[in-house]
Amino acid sequence: MPELRYNVITHDWVIIATERAKRPEEFAKKKDKKVLPVFVPTCPFCPGNEKMTPPEAYVVSDTTGWRVRVTPNKFAALACEGKRERSIQGIRRKVSGVGIHEVIVETPDHSKTTAQLSDREMEILIQTYLNRFKAASADPRVEHVTLFKNHGEAAGTSLEHPHSQLIGTPVITSQIRDRLIHSLRHFDEFGECVFCHVMDLESQEGTRVVLESEKFICFTPFAALTPFSITIIPRRHMACFAEMNDAEAADLSKILRRTLSKLYWGLSDPDYNYAIRTTPIEYTGVKYYHWYVSIIPRLTKMAGFELGSGMFINVSLPEENAAFLRGITVE
Amino acid sequence: MPELRYNVITHDWVIIATERAKRPEEFAKKKDKKVLPVFVPTCPFCPGNEKMTPPEAYVVSDTTGWRVRVTPNKFAALACEGKRERSIQGIRRKVSGVGIHEVIVETPDHSKTTAQLSDREMEILIQTYLNRFKAASADPRVEHVTLFKNHGEAAGTSLEHPHSQLIGTPVITSQIRDRLIHSLRHFDEFGECVFCHVMDLESQEGTRVVLESEKFICFTPFAALTPFSITIIPRRHMACFAEMNDAEAADLSKILRRTLSKLYWGLSDPDYNYAIRTTPIEYTGVKYYHWYVSIIPRLTKMAGFELGSGMFINVSLPEENAAFLRGITVE
Repeated sequence: MPELRYNVITHDWVIIATERAKRPEEFAKKKDKKVLPVFVPTCPFCPGNEKMTPPEAYVVSDTTGWRVRVTPNKFAALACEGKRERSIQGIRRKVSGVGIHEVIVETPDHSKTTAQLSDREMEILIQTYLNRFKAASADPRVEHVTLFKNHGEAAGTSLEHPHSQLIGTPVITSQIRDRLIHSLRHFDEFGECVFCHVMDLESQEGTRVVLESEKFICFTPFAALTPFSITIIPRRHMACFAEMNDAEAADLSKILRRTLSKLYWGLSDPDYNYAIRTTPIEYTGVKYYHWYVSIIPRLTKMAGFELGSGMFINVSLPEENAAFLRGITVE
Repeated sequence: MPELRYNVITHDWVIIATERAKRPEEFAKKKDKKVLPVFVPTCPFCPGNEKMTPPEAYVVSDTTGWRVRVTPNKFAALACEGKRERSIQGIRRKVSGVGIHEVIVETPDHSKTTAQLSDREMEILIQTYLNRFKAASADPRVEHVTLFKNHGEAAGTSLEHPHSQLIGTPVITSQIRDRLIHSLRHFDEFGECVFCHVMDLESQEGTRVVLESEKFICFTPFAALTPFSITIIPRRHMACFAEMNDAEAADLSKILRRTLSKLYWGLSDPDYNYAIRTTPIEYTGVKYYHWYVSIIPRLTKMAGFELGSGMFINVSLPEENAAFLRGITVE
């Protein structure tokens, strides 16, 4: 019989459609893998084409050239110039669309996917995320910073060259606002961080664990909304992504790269998004929220039921997804 | 400059990306229209193939045969048999996956789309929705009923034959629960139905109105999350879909059909979902919630920012969308 499960962090119900569930390997991408060239003359993110993007905001280089390169997004969703102004008229609320929208080019090599970066390259990327998160957070017009990645067409990108993005918004985004409210209430009622509790339970039960490292745990959530949804969460309680120290950043680099590799090899390079779900920087130290990384492979489509109810039908079992990924050997 | 707008009903912020906005006609589907046959021998919803589906739960017939046919979904997300049981262990909550999942075949004609139904056919369909909504609501295991439609592949369906669906869940879905909470708070604070206020404002301002009829208003919301999102809302305050009378049902049939026609002709038969956002039936008469129909054309993809923040980037202007649709002449 199908089962409804409750996500105690988001307060969402999900239908785990056991009868309709597919086996993990059925989610592997069918289409032939395209071999990408190392350099594409028309790609704005390839070395030598730097003039095709706005001037860089940040760069990490070595003797061979840049390794990671950050520029304002040429097609920014928010204006980098201008004042933040709020208008309140009756029930209408508006804020001027100012903020920060950056592109983080992850490697000079067009042919790589994020899953194929070395640990060292991934560490440079995570350190870049930290740098840009702090820089964007320092802008007084920015209330909240979202770091995210779109990989593949189903995940909303048409640019092949591996890149991540950062958007600093002039309001707190609704998902984080709602998680802050829910987790504060949980703290008030139970005197604990709900994320710490979930993490401890996942670690004890073990059936949904994909990987464990010294400083992070990677698992498929009990009430995963979609097939192969993955959470990577730090063992140490930290509200804000910027609280992470260097040892933790190095550890995150490894576990994130290994998780992406497992998806790459297990599901034939699926399209996916990931996002860092953190508090704004000034929440540093709060006891009730706990930042984490969500990886969301884009293996199914949202239909009218999901859009009309907010409830998802997950046609896979989180426990089977995790066991399948544990079985994929990666370096 | 882009603009952030607040949806006072859902409490979501959306970025209206004015700089990146496309013109309405750019959203029209590029691919050639496929001419569908009237009858397909392998289609489970075509007349003569009734044995390919479970026995019917409800049917509307005339002398020529059935006009609308409702059956349990062969691949149901919830089990129709079994007890509703809730398990609460520590922070884990589960409910057995029982409920109702029906398919509503809208016409015997395989070649039609919902936009091409006659007013009379649409009225039979709306009356069928009402009948099935009430029948599902009478099941003591069902807390909430969602009526919805998936049209086209991007909207999550592979079956061409026009059909809608109904899912009766053993819990209230999270979107409706959250809208109930928000709108109850608004009522408490301002002594009014927030939906009535929004409707009056849209009607006065007029810039986002697509169609007005005697009993309904159709508009693109001020803070529409995606291009060409549409709300059709009854002028009379009603919390629950089942409160609608026959004259209103007839009026809804016309305005829904005309709206779908405008999308069909204006955007070349776009993929879309629609859903009826109503309270559960026992909320009949409450003053703070107001049911409505959401139509969501699937013209763009959710990417990492949307999934990671809950905030959408709408690359169109609701005012331009509405003006464009007003300009499409339909019967």
